[in-house]
Amino acid sequence: MNSFGDKFRFTSFGESHGRAIGGVLDGVPAGLSIDIDMIHDELDQRAGRIAAIGHATSTRAQHEQDEIEWLSGVMDGKTLGTPIAFIIRNTDARPQDYEWLRTHFRPGHADWVYEKKYGIRDWRGGGRASARETISRVVVGCIAKQLLLAKGIRIHAQVTQIGMETDSTKWETLLEEVRRAGDSIGGIVTCTISGVPVGVGEPIFDKLQSHLAYAMMTINGCKGFDYGCGFSELDQRGSEQYTHCTAESCPASGGIDGGISNGQDIVFRCAFKPTATIGQLYKGRHDVCIALRAAAVVEAMAALVLINETL
Amino acid sequence: MNSFGDKFRFTSFGESHGRAIGGVLDGVPAGLSIDIDMIHDELDQRAGRIAAIGHATSTRAQHEQDEIEWLSGVMDGKTLGTPIAFIIRNTDARPQDYEWLRTHFRPGHADWVYEKKYGIRDWRGGGRASARETISRVVVGCIAKQLLLAKGIRIHAQVTQIGMETDSTKWETLLEEVRRAGDSIGGIVTCTISGVPVGVGEPIFDKLQSHLAYAMMTINGCKGFDYGCGFSELDQRGSEQYTHCTAESCPASGGIDGGISNGQDIVFRCAFKPTATIGQLYKGRHDVCIALRAAAVVEAMAALVLINETL
Amino acid sequence: MNSFGDKFRFTSFGESHGRAIGGVLDGVPAGLSIDIDMIHDELDQRAGRIAAIGHATSTRAQHEQDEIEWLSGVMDGKTLGTPIAFIIRNTDARPQDYEWLRTHFRPGHADWVYEKKYGIRDWRGGGRASARETISRVVVGCIAKQLLLAKGIRIHAQVTQIGMETDSTKWETLLEEVRRAGDSIGGIVTCTISGVPVGVGEPIFDKLQSHLAYAMMTINGCKGFDYGCGFSELDQRGSEQYTHCTAESCPASGGIDGGISNGQDIVFRCAFKPTATIGQLYKGRHDVCIALRAAAVVEAMAALVLINETL
Amino acid sequence: MNSFGDKFRFTSFGESHGRAIGGVLDGVPAGLSIDIDMIHDELDQRAGRIAAIGHATSTRAQHEQDEIEWLSGVMDGKTLGTPIAFIIRNTDARPQDYEWLRTHFRPGHADWVYEKKYGIRDWRGGGRASARETISRVVVGCIAKQLLLAKGIRIHAQVTQIGMETDSTKWETLLEEVRRAGDSIGGIVTCTISGVPVGVGEPIFDKLQSHLAYAMMTINGCKGFDYGCGFSELDQRGSEQYTHCTAESCPASGGIDGGISNGQDIVFRCAFKPTATIGQLYKGRHDVCIALRAAAVVEAMAALVLINETL
Repeated sequence: MNSFGDKFRFTSFGESHGRAIGGVLDGVPAGLSIDIDMIHDELDQRAGRIAAIGHATSTRAQHEQDEIEWLSGVMDGKTLGTPIAFIIRNTDARPQDYEWLRTHFRPGHADWVYEKKYGIRDWRGGGRASARETISRVVVGCIAKQLLLAKGIRIHAQVTQIGMETDSTKWETLLEEVRRAGDSIGGIVTCTISGVPVGVGEPIFDKLQSHLAYAMMTINGCKGFDYGCGFSELDQRGSEQYTHCTAESCPASGGIDGGISNGQDIVFRCAFKPTATIGQLYKGRHDVCIALRAAAVVEAMAALVLINETL
Repeated sequence: MNSFGDKFRFTSFGESHGRAIGGVLDGVPAGLSIDIDMIHDELDQRAGRIAAIGHATSTRAQHEQDEIEWLSGVMDGKTLGTPIAFIIRNTDARPQDYEWLRTHFRPGHADWVYEKKYGIRDWRGGGRASARETISRVVVGCIAKQLLLAKGIRIHAQVTQIGMETDSTKWETLLEEVRRAGDSIGGIVTCTISGVPVGVGEPIFDKLQSHLAYAMMTINGCKGFDYGCGFSELDQRGSEQYTHCTAESCPASGGIDGGISNGQDIVFRCAFKPTATIGQLYKGRHDVCIALRAAAVVEAMAALVLINETL
Repeated sequence: MNSFGDKFRFTSFGESHGRAIGGVLDGVPAGLSIDIDMIHDELDQRAGRIAAIGHATSTRAQHEQDEIEWLSGVMDGKTLGTPIAFIIRNTDARPQDYEWLRTHFRPGHADWVYEKKYGIRDWRGGGRASARETISRVVVGCIAKQLLLAKGIRIHAQVTQIGMETDSTKWETLLEEVRRAGDSIGGIVTCTISGVPVGVGEPIFDKLQSHLAYAMMTINGCKGFDYGCGFSELDQRGSEQYTHCTAESCPASGGIDGGISNGQDIVFRCAFKPTATIGQLYKGRHDVCIALRAAAVVEAMAALVLINETL
Repeated sequence: MNSFGDKFRFTSFGESHGRAIGGVLDGVPAGLSIDIDMIHDELDQRAGRIAAIGHATSTRAQHEQDEIEWLSGVMDGKTLGTPIAFIIRNTDARPQDYEWLRTHFRPGHADWVYEKKYGIRDWRGGGRASARETISRVVVGCIAKQLLLAKGIRIHAQVTQIGMETDSTKWETLLEEVRRAGDSIGGIVTCTISGVPVGVGEPIFDKLQSHLAYAMMTINGCKGFDYGCGFSELDQRGSEQYTHCTAESCPASGGIDGGISNGQDIVFRCAFKPTATIGQLYKGRHDVCIALRAAAVVEAMAALVLINETL
């Protein structure tokens, strides 16, 4: 289904080359001022983060200066407590670029499974499976972040690894090389959530890390999630990880113990695969490294999890 | 909350040193024969898997020859379509072993956050946060696996790495060494699900990998989840991963594309931390490597996800 | 919240005098042809049913020749299996008519409780609480009815009582009299669902009648729900109601036994109050008898219940 | 399914002639003292209410001095914030009394639809569909009422009509007459909820009356629900109902406007059918008027609704 969250519920709709994409956000408290400019900045930033590393790495950034039309839930700049609906019209309709997708299934993409599952699909530019859908997530993530900020909770996600390279000063050269080779490369996004009070999350089946993992694994191209010691500290024994820990503070915990936030920063990582559509095989626009674009979505989804757990 | 699944819904209850642990399983179709012996075998196996590697590695195995009392939902060996409730009484009540936990919070455990969140906790042996709760998961996981088997779906999880060691012939020595040092060690459980038809899972927010990740992150000590190329193939470019792929078959996909099963085996991994309670610091029973015990729980939770997605 | 249904989930949004009202319909199977004309006919009919009884009874009918813009989920006239979003723009913005509502709370309306609950409200024409929201319900109800029809399930709702009058030939005179007196009057809508197979609904907490009652009580002005013998056969003893019944057929059952459809027609009634805004007190448009307009909404909500229970 | 409520979630299990009935109550806040005696009093009262009117009216009352075993969620008399599980063993196993039900379907009962839906049923004494299941509801309803009382919310349900008779002084004679005739009779239970603050309930689809109607229609034998003017004031015009109303106070509203409590007493009614199993046709125990026994269940279900809406 296309909804996320029980209390602060986001419903997403739209195909990338249909009339519009958009969303409905239900459960937003009444009487809040929403900073629309911050949302537009975030959408610009989303393009900007990629551009900062190397505009050559993507040929997609420029077309997404999208206009949001707010349909409901806000009056005189304040939330009404009723659903906030918004749409973003699809203006970049160049279906001829995608004509070949009508009969072709790209490996590592959802084309084939959609066709098998539904017997029909909007083949134009990925349709519903297009990354364009994540713009709506960034929009509602911004609203969530504004609410979280008022509670002192801040979320920041950034790329920390491209391929095996963790030194960010070498990324531009690396990406340029990959781009020239008509290839693609994976990466890791690390997200830090600070200001979460002790006690967020539930034991057993509503563990905070379960909701975070669920949310991250909804992002296109995300193939892994870990937090605290995760996959990266298996070379350490318990004695190394816990000896200097106290009940209140233990880096290996990643900010969560037994499913419940412990008041420390929550730190988790998401692994992104290389773009499956690579230039060696396919013409048309594609990202060399989707992790770059994904950071904003990681932040948005983390915000949706946290606001649902703290409202 | 303490329920898992929408259609095949498992509700878990019980503290490790209260009267009983148990569960209620709702949504089981009517008229099925449940093989109770298989469930008992599974519980034995759960202890057995550990013992096979080295009985010395755990001092906990022997006490869990637990008797299940079936309270409802089954008549003359067949399911009624009504909730199946079962309890397992707690007979190993040695609260004096845990008296120190009344006032002490163990790092890396849920003791402190429970106290902060609830202002009260059952301190005896971890109470609700004890691994004993997972016995109920194994019980219902068995029922789920029986139903899945009838659909041709098989689930197998096993430890594939202890610390950094992937060669299983060296594990016994390694674990013995860790045990003697009064230490603990992490590990990886790899799970393979075969026989899943194309089309299981949903795009956007109910992706199959999202449900799997959610489920795995509910397991005590699980700090990471990945599938397909995950965290381990970041050294590969897109050209290496996708050139020889077809839409139907691509190992990097891990059996899922765009949130939907593609008919290939689904392969995912779970990273488990070293036991936080280490012998250097604490007396009492503990596992040297919780990944060993966790494999059965990984299987159970994977079964709960799959049966919910395929009923 | 603003969503209805788990499988066939309708999310409603929009204030009556904001930019637009609309909805998102999730869970619609793929590959279906949707008959858009039938939806427009239904919206016309909605006005028509009232007009047939007496155009003088309402001054609201004419302004609702609303245009639906379909945003997603449909391609070349077929459903994609993705969310169907639609909007209906609000063009009848005469806020000056409602200026007095800015500071005035109408008895029997939601004005006051909205103000108390949210501290803010869209006072223009009732805002979110306006009956205009039900247009979206009728739209999705039509889609649901098309799917149900393919399963042989038909739903028909009609007014069967106005005030205490059950003879429909006397309604026009009665309504005219009420209108002239600047008054309003209540009524009963009776709904019959035929073609439901045996076995729809669940025992205990997901009884079919529970879902129907829930749905009907979401309709503005609905103050009562009953089915089968309901409130109206309390003068009969069990011997009168059951003697001639068989397990398969019993009128007192109203088509549902123990929460589960029994294959007979399901017959239920909804009681609607007189419009609270009466002409004696308030200027402006209002319905003399909201039951007339409600019949289409009863049908729509019944369709949403049935499609959720039978998909 | 067998769960009720999202926040304060009750899961019910058990067949009337299986090993036990019981429930799991999830979402109970931690640190509360539960008055177990009050629960036992309530169960006694449940029998008592009937007895007060005439012990001859039921032959079922005496066997339900049931013992509750509390399995989890409570330590030293205080709630832990973990699931509270309890069981009540079935000791009154006289399956020979019910042998005839193995092959016989009673009209107006769930026997036939269960058989059709599931292909199997526990025919002993109604099995899952037996009114015995409602004992668990009364137990958790008591816990809910204790929590509500601390918020100043009181719930009281009582029979206000038997057949067409509203004068309670005539009920004993009436019931005795019905009993002698081997017949059964319907009735109305009226429930008053006082102390609900303004603002409980949501507009559109989570209206307070929707949740109340849903809950009442889960009670065996309940065929109708109304509140405020409901079905009984159709003889009144709007001018009669609203002229003397203010926004804050309007008896026709029944305590709820637009789905949201308005601070007045909430008053609703439930119509109960005559027992379908009548003595003229069947031997064995049955109630002459199930409304008598139902009042306690109405209270319990109302408490579950209110606690879910106010936690």
